Amino acid sequence: MPSSLYYSLLLPDLRIMLDEHDDTGMAEFCKVLHPAVIAEVMEGLEPARTWEVLGHCDPAHQAEILQNFPLPYQIELVEAVERERLSRVIEEMSPDDRASLMRRMDREHVEQLMPLIAQAERADIRKLLSYPDDSAGAIMTTEYASLPGDITVAEALNRLRMQAPSRETIYVIYITDDERHLQGFLSLRKLIQARPTAILADVMDRDVLSVRVSDDQEFVANQIQKYDFIAIPVVDQHNRLVGIVTHDDAADILQEEATEDTQMLAAVQPLEDSYLGTPFFTLAHKRGIWLVILLGASSLTAHVLNYFEPDGSANWMILFMPLVLASGGNAGSQSATLIIRALALDETGGNVGTIAWRELRLGAFLGAILGLLAFGGGSLLVPWLRASVVGLTVFCVVTLGTITGSMLPLALKKLGADPALMSNPMIASLSDVTGVVVFYNIARWLLFA
Amino acid sequence: MPSSLYYSLLLPDLRIMLDEHDDTGMAEFCKVLHPAVIAEVMEGLEPARTWEVLGHCDPAHQAEILQNFPLPYQIELVEAVERERLSRVIEEMSPDDRASLMRRMDREHVEQLMPLIAQAERADIRKLLSYPDDSAGAIMTTEYASLPGDITVAEALNRLRMQAPSRETIYVIYITDDERHLQGFLSLRKLIQARPTAILADVMDRDVLSVRVSDDQEFVANQIQKYDFIAIPVVDQHNRLVGIVTHDDAADILQEEATEDTQMLAAVQPLEDSYLGTPFFTLAHKRGIWLVILLGASSLTAHVLNYFEPDGSANWMILFMPLVLASGGNAGSQSATLIIRALALDETGGNVGTIAWRELRLGAFLGAILGLLAFGGGSLLVPWLRASVVGLTVFCVVTLGTITGSMLPLALKKLGADPALMSNPMIASLSDVTGVVVFYNIARWLLFA
Repeated sequence: MPSSLYYSLLLPDLRIMLDEHDDTGMAEFCKVLHPAVIAEVMEGLEPARTWEVLGHCDPAHQAEILQNFPLPYQIELVEAVERERLSRVIEEMSPDDRASLMRRMDREHVEQLMPLIAQAERADIRKLLSYPDDSAGAIMTTEYASLPGDITVAEALNRLRMQAPSRETIYVIYITDDERHLQGFLSLRKLIQARPTAILADVMDRDVLSVRVSDDQEFVANQIQKYDFIAIPVVDQHNRLVGIVTHDDAADILQEEATEDTQMLAAVQPLEDSYLGTPFFTLAHKRGIWLVILLGASSLTAHVLNYFEPDGSANWMILFMPLVLASGGNAGSQSATLIIRALALDETGGNVGTIAWRELRLGAFLGAILGLLAFGGGSLLVPWLRASVVGLTVFCVVTLGTITGSMLPLALKKLGADPALMSNPMIASLSDVTGVVVFYNIARWLLFA
Repeated sequence: MPSSLYYSLLLPDLRIMLDEHDDTGMAEFCKVLHPAVIAEVMEGLEPARTWEVLGHCDPAHQAEILQNFPLPYQIELVEAVERERLSRVIEEMSPDDRASLMRRMDREHVEQLMPLIAQAERADIRKLLSYPDDSAGAIMTTEYASLPGDITVAEALNRLRMQAPSRETIYVIYITDDERHLQGFLSLRKLIQARPTAILADVMDRDVLSVRVSDDQEFVANQIQKYDFIAIPVVDQHNRLVGIVTHDDAADILQEEATEDTQMLAAVQPLEDSYLGTPFFTLAHKRGIWLVILLGASSLTAHVLNYFEPDGSANWMILFMPLVLASGGNAGSQSATLIIRALALDETGGNVGTIAWRELRLGAFLGAILGLLAFGGGSLLVPWLRASVVGLTVFCVVTLGTITGSMLPLALKKLGADPALMSNPMIASLSDVTGVVVFYNIARWLLFA
């Protein structure tokens, strides 16, 4: 669920158009807005209704809108439409976006679609799908502008005019020989400044930096970023041009990789969708799995402490102190990190209420699971009543940590401060103080009541 | 200190050229390589020697290389050259890079330079410097391509050829009226496909998305990213075009913001330079300041525990358990985060030895400071001998945490795994186990020996 201004303003209108079968309105909607905006608005609709709206424009335009949706929603869409219609849209998509969609689709579904897709596109898809995930081959597009080196500048401009409509970019033109070996490149800027009678081979730049089709996508994106390129050519092992990666895809990859790293650093399995776009149980799973692993690691600390402070010691609580405090801190860091990254990507749209309610439920859910596990593990070291103090405390601190971790960055943002000031160790420290208070109070209540 | 392949291969050669006063070699070096590569190599030289190499090309080329250095090194450079020569180079820099350099320069130095700079550039600098930090105005360039709406496509192409050499990009052309009000835009792709006799106003796109000069840079960068723009126009409050922000700068901003957020999330004051480029004491300061604040927060936990476990209790160590464990975990998370981000930005170059040695010294240094503080704070709660157990333990766990946090991601990388798997909570958990062992052993050794 996205949440920009567009979304909240236009979605209700669109729903009314759908209810009233306002064909003119829907056609207008598809026509005047930027595909990125259209996609953002329609992400709030069920897939079947999105296809209903899309029916008001031609397949090329539908394809352009389709590739602006986040991948998880694209997957929902392709599963909600008849194959014939889908194949027309897929033919019109740009090769790289098409390949990344089909990479994520059900294999069987892809095989059913293939015969319906025109021959040229089908071959292109097969080729792109054959490259490994996260390689240059998997993210490149095959729609690049290329010309032979032996024609004049004037002739080049004429040919370029014909290539233009179907190329991802024509601002960098690659010069190749008959066997597609990469010989050099020319920027369109340089081309339009060159003497019309000059031969391309004489004006082109021979010092062309390329990447291999098997290179890692992050490396490719970093190259584009470093040299401020509009695109970088991708070659096979024989230096034959097979595709290009463009600046906008490079920027997306770097953003995604940064988001992934940030989430992993906070022990969250990377989300495939935006924070708000990720369903409750997916989010619970991606956080819970690491919280459980970390609880296991903390139980190691409890056992080590048990070695130094054998059973029967007056202070049995010391055994579980690190475990209890870490649980709250870890859950809090996860929330803070997710929110801070979502704020940086402009994904929250200021839905404080929605976020608070979701995090509260999530905290309670994760807290219940961790609490039960902590109770079970605790029973191995101490009597069950003491273990239930541990379990109950873990439940409380995880819930509290989650809600604190999510709300503090939003509060800082509201106050005009940088939300990232609320660092994970800071959340953990705050969580430590409340954790101690909760632990002792639950112990007093259950053991001495 | 950068560390790419180029760097290690070419820097020694360059040093030899300098020693042998090989003018032809240095001129060749400046001419054939990409300015980004040249900058990367020369970053390893002292500023005075870099100027010596730069002397082998013209001011325009010097400017291009200069703006490819990271800002901290640019600052070192401008302080190491006579003003007259610097002013020639500054005149040739692109307006946005020039402005961001001068924003960071000593104010007095800027004022001394200004009279030496040509009138047009001087006015441009004054204007760009007048916009607030981190606003669209502060990052835009004033070298955009613009044309009136009443000329023909053929005429437009002719004028564009003349504008081309001095414009940051000519792939998006903005159509303005006599008072520079933004009326629409045309991509060069569309322009070269249009009928030569058509009037620009008839073929241009009127639906132009612009940002305000006061908009936040992160918002601007997100807009460019979202719409896959090559550039976005920046307007003043009267909708007059004042500049553009280009895709490459947007990508840099998003990268920087992601790095900043990641570092802040791990309680590191954002580095202004790369990890290896940041001097030892700067890094110590940026990490130490937060470690001290967090130690303060942890001492709160100790006091709360003291309330529940009053003096004289058999287990005085419980009071300091959270503080001791948190110190190690925090230091470890800082290291892990810095290394993982540096790996993502391709900044480490595999210098495991250098990194290990630096982190070891850093850990010991930070550990000593935190250990002393923990000893001082601990003395308020327990006798000095016990407090010295705390201090010594903090010293050890911070050193250990730092070295573990930095080495584990590098080891994962070496093994072909994702270094970010070693999440901060995981580092903290590992640090907890060793922390407990260290704490009890030091206590036994100092108190019962």
